[in-house]
Amino acid sequence: MALIVQKFGGTSVGTVERILGVAQKVKGFVDQGHEIVVVPSAMSGETNRLIGLARDISERPLPREMDVLLSTGEQVTIALLAMALNELGCPAKSYTGAQVCIRTDSAHTKARIQAIDDASMRIDLDLGYVVIVAGFQGMDDAGNITTLGRGGSDTTAVALAAALKADECQIYTDVDGVYTTDPRVVSSARRLDKVTFEEMLEMASLGSKVLQIRAVEFAGKYNVPLRVLSTFEDGPGTLITTEELDAMEQPIISGIAFSRDEAKLTLVGVPDVPGVAAKILAPVGHKNIEVDMIVQNVGVDQTTDFTFTVDRNDLDIAFEVLEGVSTALGAREVRQDAKICKVSVVGVGMRSHAGVATQMFETLAAEGINIQMISTSEIKISVVVDEKYLELAVRSLHTAFELSEKDVQKTA
Amino acid sequence: MALIVQKFGGTSVGTVERILGVAQKVKGFVDQGHEIVVVPSAMSGETNRLIGLARDISERPLPREMDVLLSTGEQVTIALLAMALNELGCPAKSYTGAQVCIRTDSAHTKARIQAIDDASMRIDLDLGYVVIVAGFQGMDDAGNITTLGRGGSDTTAVALAAALKADECQIYTDVDGVYTTDPRVVSSARRLDKVTFEEMLEMASLGSKVLQIRAVEFAGKYNVPLRVLSTFEDGPGTLITTEELDAMEQPIISGIAFSRDEAKLTLVGVPDVPGVAAKILAPVGHKNIEVDMIVQNVGVDQTTDFTFTVDRNDLDIAFEVLEGVSTALGAREVRQDAKICKVSVVGVGMRSHAGVATQMFETLAAEGINIQMISTSEIKISVVVDEKYLELAVRSLHTAFELSEKDVQKTA
Repeated sequence: MALIVQKFGGTSVGTVERILGVAQKVKGFVDQGHEIVVVPSAMSGETNRLIGLARDISERPLPREMDVLLSTGEQVTIALLAMALNELGCPAKSYTGAQVCIRTDSAHTKARIQAIDDASMRIDLDLGYVVIVAGFQGMDDAGNITTLGRGGSDTTAVALAAALKADECQIYTDVDGVYTTDPRVVSSARRLDKVTFEEMLEMASLGSKVLQIRAVEFAGKYNVPLRVLSTFEDGPGTLITTEELDAMEQPIISGIAFSRDEAKLTLVGVPDVPGVAAKILAPVGHKNIEVDMIVQNVGVDQTTDFTFTVDRNDLDIAFEVLEGVSTALGAREVRQDAKICKVSVVGVGMRSHAGVATQMFETLAAEGINIQMISTSEIKISVVVDEKYLELAVRSLHTAFELSEKDVQKTA
Repeated sequence: MALIVQKFGGTSVGTVERILGVAQKVKGFVDQGHEIVVVPSAMSGETNRLIGLARDISERPLPREMDVLLSTGEQVTIALLAMALNELGCPAKSYTGAQVCIRTDSAHTKARIQAIDDASMRIDLDLGYVVIVAGFQGMDDAGNITTLGRGGSDTTAVALAAALKADECQIYTDVDGVYTTDPRVVSSARRLDKVTFEEMLEMASLGSKVLQIRAVEFAGKYNVPLRVLSTFEDGPGTLITTEELDAMEQPIISGIAFSRDEAKLTLVGVPDVPGVAAKILAPVGHKNIEVDMIVQNVGVDQTTDFTFTVDRNDLDIAFEVLEGVSTALGAREVRQDAKICKVSVVGVGMRSHAGVATQMFETLAAEGINIQMISTSEIKISVVVDEKYLELAVRSLHTAFELSEKDVQKTA
């Protein structure tokens, strides 16, 4: 018998029929003797409907009232799911975030969980109830309703699992696990049985939108075993774990991640003096624009070129800011390029294997793909290339690092 | 400067435009220096939408979960109204029933308010906020969400007004006050400036659906001045008050109420022995059917006829029950009649005026309307007549008791 926290996303509870389907799935676990806490999202479309109402009233609705409004979406789902479970003869009780004392800070619409009181949930679990908790929401010290931001239900589920010391936190989505890369790009992409939290973080931040980054961080920090599974098909999914596999079975590379959402900015001919990077990036930061990769070339003629990437949606504002900076610093020119993409190889195995970078660059060179920027971390190497090469780059790297099903069978 | 609690019904907040209109109206009072607490209902249609979702999942959804579900309707409105007021530059904060500690018993879907803690509302009012509280909902001692039943927002408003010792509780609806009778039946019906709580209770229970009976009872008990007004037109509305007018200006009759929702059942030839009434009514009560008027004729031949009225929706079940009773008691026959209506004259003035009953019966007789049943209270006389006479009875009584505008001008 295990204590399992199960999170179901908006698509999984998008209709009354699907809510009944989720209830059936949950009941299956209860019938096996497990204790279950369920965290559903709002029915798909509901959050957007509520945002639409708010926007009709105000261009900038008060964040405090936005939270009062949006938290109703999950509250509807928990009630319907509790009804569905009871209808199946499976006793269940629903709770809002406030009711199970999910304490957050007061940063409305993007609050962070600070504490959870698990006492009332434990009592219900001991009495044999399935406990259903509204995802995405909490309450600050003053009793105001808060929300955790989009995708916050993942974080709620992980936080509940940590507070209850659950055996596993299961995230049910419309994909059946984490893949070596996006199967829409590489049809032979393989579902991973296990990945480490570090790898998952790199994959998530690079555009694998299976899990919310904060939820993965939280799970890693509190050592909550996390599993990604499909709501609609049975299967083991992918387990995200702190255990590293031993060297024999550890693959060097776990997956190829990519992102099309980036754009590149270059300040050409900046004076090559100390403090110039800060002078360039500070005004960008002031506009709340996040900078991802940064490259500064070695200077010639006392000038240098300074390049960085931002989210493509922020390109126009960042370009405006840079034009001001350029004048102030006496730079030669500002260049922008939205037609780029980022491709990364990710794997804890590269810690103990030299030559991953070489193999990556050779593979790309063999395909005639020019590398525009490079950035590395302990378990990841990312390159920026022309957008048109994205599929080719991902496919060739997937093959080169032997990530397909047939490669695994070959080496086994 | 006054402290006013204002309740707006579902039609008044049925669209984003109407919510903005309500915000304008509330701001008008704030600009005059008043302190305002607003209690909105769910947007019209929303409660039925939610009930529809629940019914798709379960024929008998759990009452506890029904309350979690339905309470979201009002929560959406309070957030949108707070946004709208802030948009107009009028600081406002919204609260759920639980947040302002509206304590109820645990009778889910029909809970009763037991206590309200006004401390947090007072703080906000002192800081210059409009306080917006979700109607219809509360929280029991264990922290479960409860609802007060349909129309419960009226009760919330009155209870808040009592707790805050407000100067007035204003109920905004789509009619501009309480009328001497339904203007759709008598076009010369006149809006009353004032009625007493007792009169309002008789009118409400007799089918004038302006106000929820429980809210009127509550207001009378705690002496909260209650005013019914139109959301869509300006006007003084009708004040419901404990003050009785002095004899000079007190009309004998305040209004003519009526109900088409009744049906009549007669048990013919029941043994005329002690205890027979209880034997007839107890099984009806066990089916949760409320009995309204009861008439038992003086017996002849040791038998009597026993007649009572029930809600027309309950007629079939009540008839079935009575057939069982009839056999058990050895009665001759059970008769039913759905084609009846109840017409009542209501007025605290009849306490000090004899002859109201005579005038009522003479008026009906002059129109050839046969009276089937009669029941009286201190401030009301009700008769049951054939349904087809309803309009004629109401019109002739309205004229006989001089309730029209022109009658008032004539006597003035």
